[in-house]
Amino acid sequence: MQTFNFDPIGIVHSPYREKFGIPRQPGLVDVASTLELLSPYNRPEAVKGLEEFSHIWISFVFHALEQVKWRPTVRPPRLGGNSRVGVFASRSTHRPNPLGLSVVALEGIEIGQHGVCLRLGAADLLDGTPVLDIKPYIPYVDSIHDARGGFAPEAPPRLEVHFLPEVAQACRRLEGHYPGLERLIREVLAQDPRPAYQAGRNELREYGVALYDLNVRFRIVQGGVEVTGVEPAPR
Amino acid sequence: MQTFNFDPIGIVHSPYREKFGIPRQPGLVDVASTLELLSPYNRPEAVKGLEEFSHIWISFVFHALEQVKWRPTVRPPRLGGNSRVGVFASRSTHRPNPLGLSVVALEGIEIGQHGVCLRLGAADLLDGTPVLDIKPYIPYVDSIHDARGGFAPEAPPRLEVHFLPEVAQACRRLEGHYPGLERLIREVLAQDPRPAYQAGRNELREYGVALYDLNVRFRIVQGGVEVTGVEPAPR
Repeated sequence: MQTFNFDPIGIVHSPYREKFGIPRQPGLVDVASTLELLSPYNRPEAVKGLEEFSHIWISFVFHALEQVKWRPTVRPPRLGGNSRVGVFASRSTHRPNPLGLSVVALEGIEIGQHGVCLRLGAADLLDGTPVLDIKPYIPYVDSIHDARGGFAPEAPPRLEVHFLPEVAQACRRLEGHYPGLERLIREVLAQDPRPAYQAGRNELREYGVALYDLNVRFRIVQGGVEVTGVEPAPR
Repeated sequence: MQTFNFDPIGIVHSPYREKFGIPRQPGLVDVASTLELLSPYNRPEAVKGLEEFSHIWISFVFHALEQVKWRPTVRPPRLGGNSRVGVFASRSTHRPNPLGLSVVALEGIEIGQHGVCLRLGAADLLDGTPVLDIKPYIPYVDSIHDARGGFAPEAPPRLEVHFLPEVAQACRRLEGHYPGLERLIREVLAQDPRPAYQAGRNELREYGVALYDLNVRFRIVQGGVEVTGVEPAPR
């Protein structure tokens, strides 16, 4: 069969600068992002009426993947990273066609001199993500309340997040440049972004997650996450 | 930004041989279809665990479109075909990237000598549709029961369908070759497949819809749909 070619119609701007730390599904981490329509699609008419829908589907490309060959099975984090399921039984980024699909809250539409931006709630999209399509979420079709959810029947548990005192101070100083920073860090780390195969271990290893151009360091402690540093990321 | 290229991973087999008559959303018309995985993706491992999900997302290409230039607004059938909304506020087939998205019931997985077929319930997919991706439906993420549905807040009403007596007879004779034919016709026509701009009119025009290689003729009468003919489609 033929190959199909698609050009992006938009691009995502988000605090997520690397795959590590991105929520594993949309709706889990309440962090604002924007979707900027690209020319020639950045016309107010193209989104006329969209404001009447509370949620939208975003079809996008996993654009920042390492070049890895497609494999028929993957190890989803929800199974602890040890069990394998079929790639089509997962939402893994490593799939034959690197297509992503996210339902996100549409919080507003900004129409300016230079085009159209959609304000998104709780997305799970890397900064710079190329968007191929936007569709309205139609509840009577898309919301299937009695669907069976296989190995991911409910949202993963959230962890408690606390800051070392000097890190809390540093964070407050940074709020001027990064409004909502503390909340962003709390939301992202509550999801336990560690690789699944690490999640069972009891260890003091420090991790770093990139949010905007900051490096946020943390470790897992009894009962939660401890934020151990917030500083400009090395360039 | 760069152009992205995708190769189909599967193909749909359905009774729908032309766009006219296809349900406007999945889940509305209870008609079975199948999704055949294509080589090299037609391996049982690639769908391992998928049977634990009751529904799947199918990302596909609207492959049989006339070549029409993209337009920023469309006239959705749900608004009577007269009002315009933005192309991104609709699920119209005519969009900048002709990508389709349907959630369908997964009724079974058939693994045979020659590969893998998924049995689908109530899809809205043209026969021959190229499939780019399959993902599990994850209820805790995808089912947003309080979402606001804009101009399509609920399923469209269904029409009563009745057969002219001689057509009912012809249909029964054809059931040997086309099991479930009468039910298929009832399901498809109950949706009122007429173009929206015709739907307000009170007229005796006869329409034809292609199901398998049959031409099903019908007209709209007081209180419903009258099936006026079922015969092999002209080749």
